[in-house]
Amino acid sequence: MNILYIMFDQLRFDYLSCAGHPHLHTPHIDGLAAKGVRFTRAYVQSPTCGSSRMSSYTGRYPSSHGVQFNSYPLRVGEWTMGDHLRKTGMGCHLIGKTHMVADAEGMQRLGLAPDSVIGVRQSECGFDPWVRDDGLWAEGPDGFYDQKRSPYNDYLRQQGYPGGNPWNDFANAGAEDGDIASGWFMVNADKPANIAEADSETPWLTSRAMDFIEQAEGPWCAHLSYIKPHWPYIVPAPYHDLYGPEHVLPAVRSAAEREDAHPVFKGMMNNRIGQAFSRDEVRQKVIPAYMGLIKQADDQMGRLFAWLEETGRMRDTMIVITSDHGDYLGDHWLGEKNLFHEPSIKVPLIIYDPRSLADATRGTVCDELVEAIDLLPTFLEAAGGEPAPHILEGRSLMPFLRGETPDWRGYAVAEFDYSTMPLCSSLGLEPRDARLFMIADKRWKFMHAEGGMRPMLFDLENDPDELVDLAARQTHQEVIDLMYGRLLDWGLRMSQRITLSDQQIKARRGKSGRRGILLGVYEAEEVEPELTAKCRGPVPQ
Amino acid sequence: MNILYIMFDQLRFDYLSCAGHPHLHTPHIDGLAAKGVRFTRAYVQSPTCGSSRMSSYTGRYPSSHGVQFNSYPLRVGEWTMGDHLRKTGMGCHLIGKTHMVADAEGMQRLGLAPDSVIGVRQSECGFDPWVRDDGLWAEGPDGFYDQKRSPYNDYLRQQGYPGGNPWNDFANAGAEDGDIASGWFMVNADKPANIAEADSETPWLTSRAMDFIEQAEGPWCAHLSYIKPHWPYIVPAPYHDLYGPEHVLPAVRSAAEREDAHPVFKGMMNNRIGQAFSRDEVRQKVIPAYMGLIKQADDQMGRLFAWLEETGRMRDTMIVITSDHGDYLGDHWLGEKNLFHEPSIKVPLIIYDPRSLADATRGTVCDELVEAIDLLPTFLEAAGGEPAPHILEGRSLMPFLRGETPDWRGYAVAEFDYSTMPLCSSLGLEPRDARLFMIADKRWKFMHAEGGMRPMLFDLENDPDELVDLAARQTHQEVIDLMYGRLLDWGLRMSQRITLSDQQIKARRGKSGRRGILLGVYEAEEVEPELTAKCRGPVPQ
Repeated sequence: MNILYIMFDQLRFDYLSCAGHPHLHTPHIDGLAAKGVRFTRAYVQSPTCGSSRMSSYTGRYPSSHGVQFNSYPLRVGEWTMGDHLRKTGMGCHLIGKTHMVADAEGMQRLGLAPDSVIGVRQSECGFDPWVRDDGLWAEGPDGFYDQKRSPYNDYLRQQGYPGGNPWNDFANAGAEDGDIASGWFMVNADKPANIAEADSETPWLTSRAMDFIEQAEGPWCAHLSYIKPHWPYIVPAPYHDLYGPEHVLPAVRSAAEREDAHPVFKGMMNNRIGQAFSRDEVRQKVIPAYMGLIKQADDQMGRLFAWLEETGRMRDTMIVITSDHGDYLGDHWLGEKNLFHEPSIKVPLIIYDPRSLADATRGTVCDELVEAIDLLPTFLEAAGGEPAPHILEGRSLMPFLRGETPDWRGYAVAEFDYSTMPLCSSLGLEPRDARLFMIADKRWKFMHAEGGMRPMLFDLENDPDELVDLAARQTHQEVIDLMYGRLLDWGLRMSQRITLSDQQIKARRGKSGRRGILLGVYEAEEVEPELTAKCRGPVPQ
Repeated sequence: MNILYIMFDQLRFDYLSCAGHPHLHTPHIDGLAAKGVRFTRAYVQSPTCGSSRMSSYTGRYPSSHGVQFNSYPLRVGEWTMGDHLRKTGMGCHLIGKTHMVADAEGMQRLGLAPDSVIGVRQSECGFDPWVRDDGLWAEGPDGFYDQKRSPYNDYLRQQGYPGGNPWNDFANAGAEDGDIASGWFMVNADKPANIAEADSETPWLTSRAMDFIEQAEGPWCAHLSYIKPHWPYIVPAPYHDLYGPEHVLPAVRSAAEREDAHPVFKGMMNNRIGQAFSRDEVRQKVIPAYMGLIKQADDQMGRLFAWLEETGRMRDTMIVITSDHGDYLGDHWLGEKNLFHEPSIKVPLIIYDPRSLADATRGTVCDELVEAIDLLPTFLEAAGGEPAPHILEGRSLMPFLRGETPDWRGYAVAEFDYSTMPLCSSLGLEPRDARLFMIADKRWKFMHAEGGMRPMLFDLENDPDELVDLAARQTHQEVIDLMYGRLLDWGLRMSQRITLSDQQIKARRGKSGRRGILLGVYEAEEVEPELTAKCRGPVPQ
C-alpha cells in the first residue's frame, strides 16, 4: 500500500460542504469522506505553519521538537516521518511546501554536506524532495527568492511568463490598466489572477504529484502539500467570481469579546491583521476569493482522484486530506490564525483506507479528539512498522478506521510561541515567556499563557462559538484547576528519551549482575555462583 | 586561562573536613576551598552517574537531554561542553570516566563514522578523549570488558599484573590464602587491595592528568574524572586501615521512616542494596574503606596541586572539585544513591579561580542553591564565550566568585528514572511512569512521583536530617501546592528551542515586511512604499 498525504494550507475545518458549509460545494473532497472516515475534532499542535508542520512531520509537540514558530530550524537528527517510514522500506517524498528550515550550524558541526543524500534529508525535514516549493517568493537581499530556487517560478518561466518573479507578477496578481494588481493587497482579492488557470499553483502542484506517482516504485508515502488557500488571497478565473458578498457568512464575534480581553487576545485583535479583518470590506473581498481557492482545490482533487481511479491506484493508496491550521477570516476580530479558537486550531481530517479492514467505517464521522501528530503513527502502522511511542507522541488512528473504540486521550494539546511578534515586546516579555498552551477536551477549551497572565476558558458545549471567556469571570476555578493538573501531566511527559524504546528498557531490568556489576552483596554466597565466578578463585600468577 | 574540572564519583558532600566531617581530614581539598569558594547547597540533576553526568556535560536537565538513567545513549547532535567551549577556541578533553553511551543508531542514520573526529566526539559526549576509562570491568559476552578496551587494564598489564582482567583481580580485590578476595563482596572492604598503591586507580589517573597537562597547548578544559570513591569499596594499603568502626558515624535513620513510607522509598529500602546497608556490619566494613578512598583522593589532590604550583600553572588554571552524586551509606536505610535525600543528591563543589576578580571571595562559602548544570555556563563565561541560555539551562556561577549577589533561582530541580529497575514492574508501572522529580528550596524538599503516587515533603529547617515525610501526614497542603506550581513552571520550561538564540528571536521581530511578506494590508498606501515596491508597477512583458 502507498500513502498520499495531502495537506492544504490554512484550510478551515468548516469550509467544506461535508463539514456543513452552506454555500461552498466540495463534492470531490466530500466524495473521499464518503469512502473514508472524517474526523470532526482534529486539532493541529500549533496554529501556525512551521510549528504545526514540524509536529505533523515528527509526530511530536512543538516544545518537544523545538520548532515553536515559523522558520525556527529543526534540530539536526530529529526523527522525521521519512526516518520512521524508511525503516519499514517505504519511501517518503515531498511535493510542495514544508516550511522547513535546516539547522545549518548543527549540520556543519556534524560535518553533513547539504547536498549529500543525508544532508538533503536533514534539510528537508526527512523527505526526499520531488518538488519543494513554499509558495511565497520575493526578490532581493532579504527576500526568500534569492535564497532558494522556486520550481514554480521555473515552471512559469518555461510557460513564457516574463520577469524575475512571475509568481509575484502573475500568479499572485491581477492586472489593472497594464499595472500589477498584487494579491498582497486585499483590495485586489476579487480580481482574477493574471494567469491561465491551468498554470496557477494548485493545478501545477497536482500535475507534479501525478508525475511523481507515475514514476514511483515500491511502497511510497507522498506528501502533497499545497500552499493554497493560504494568503495572498487571489485566484484565477473562473474561480475569482464564483462567490460574492452574499456567500460571506456573518463574522462570529461579539462586542463583549473586546471588553476585558486577555492581553494576548487583545494584542492580536489590535494588530494590523486583526484590525484589517474586523473591517467588513476586507471580509467581503477576501472570503469569496478564499472560497474560490478552495473550490479550485476541490476541482483539482476531482482531477487527481479520477486519475487515481483510472489507473487503478485508488485500490492501493491510502489518502489523507488535512490542513496545517485554519483561518479566522474575521471571526473573533482576528485574521489569519495564531490563537486557539476553533477556526484557527481545528482542521479538516479525512482518511481513506482502501483495504477491506476499513469497509465498516466508510462514510462515517469520528468525534474523538485527534491530533495532527497522530498521522505519523497511523502511517507507521499502515506501513507495517513497529510503534515508536518513545519518540512519537501521537497515536495511530487505525483503530478508528477499523471501527474499534479504543481507550482514547481525554484532551488535545496545542502550543503557540509569539516571541518573534512585536506583541512579545509590547507586553514586556522575554522570548521564553511569550508562549501559550491549549488544552481542549470535548466540553472545555483552556489556554494557559506564560508570563504571569491569567488563563482563558471556553465552554464548548454551552458556548460553541467561544464568545465568553469564563476565566475572566472567575466562576470556574474547578475547571481551571483540572486543566492546570492536565497541563502539569503534559509538561512532565517523557519526550526526549528517544534513543531507547520501552521494550529495550524492560529488557534491561535485573541484568546488571550478568554484566558483572554486583550491588549490595556482602558475601559471595548471597548471589548465584555463576554471577560471582569471575571474582572468585586463585590470584593469577 | 585553562580549566581543570575534577569530578569524583559518589563522593558525599559531607565527607570532607572542610564540610565538617569529624574524622576524615582532607587538607588538600580544604586548601583549594581556602583559595576559592565552597558551595554548600550544590545539587546534581540526578542521583545516578549517567544522568547526572550528561546533565553536567550538556548543562541541561535529564528530561531535556533524554539520558534519564545510566547507559541511555545521548542523542546524536546534543550540544555538549566540548561544543560550547570549542566555539570559544578552548579545547575540551577527557581524562577518566563519563558513563557516556553513544547513540549508535542516530550516528549511523547521519552517516557518522565512529572513528572520525566528529564521530569520536559524538561517542564521547563532546570530549576529545585523552583517557576514557569508566572504571568497572567484567570479562565475558555480557560484560563491559570485551566491548571496550580499558586503558587502566592496559596499564596494569604493562606493570606486570597478569591475567585477562587485572582490574578485577588486583585493583578491585584483596588476597586471602592465595585466592582473590573481591571488592565486589563488601565483607572484603577492610582488606588492602592487592596492588601497589601507586598503581591503584586514583594515582594512575592523576598521573594521566599530569601527562595531559604537560603536553597541552592553548586554552584547555580538562575533565579529570575519577571513578573513586565509588563502589566497589576497596583501597590499597595504607589507606585500608586508616579508619575503623570507631570512625563510622551513626546512621541517620529512624524506625518511623519504615512506617507508611512512600512506595518508591519503601521499594528501595527493601531491595538488596537497602537491606545490605541497613546491616551494621556492612556499614562498619564499607565506611572505613570509603573514607580511605577519599583520603587517598585527597593525597592525590595534594600531589597534583603541588605539581601545578611548581610548574606555575596554579596561576592560570581554574580548578573545580565536585562529584556526580553522593552515597547513602546506610542513612535512611539505603545504600548507594537513587533518591533525593541530601547524602545522595547534594555534592561537594569548590571553585578556585586564579584571577584577581575572585580575590574578594577566597576562602568563603556560598549557601545559594546551585546546580551541577551551572558549571558549563560558568566555564563558558570563564572562556569568554557568549552565553547560550536557549540551550543551557544552568547559570554561570561567576557572579558568586566575584562576590556579587545576583538575583538567583529559588529552587533546584533533580530527576530520577527507575524504569530499568525491578521496582518499576513491582509497582505495576510502565516505564514512562517510573519517574521522580525533586524541587528543593532552602526550607523545603519536595518529591513528585509519576504513576499516581503521593509526593514526599521534608522541612529542611526543622528536620535537617529529613526523617519526617510531611506529605504522609497531609498537614502541609499549601507547601505542596506551591511545589506543584513550581513543578508546572519547570515542566513548561522552554528546553528544545536550541537552534535560535534569544537575540536571533528578537532580531526577527517586525522583519517579515522586509522579506516580502505583507500581512493584513488592504491597500498599498497602508504601508511604507519601499515595502511594496516589488508588487507595484507595470505587468512585465
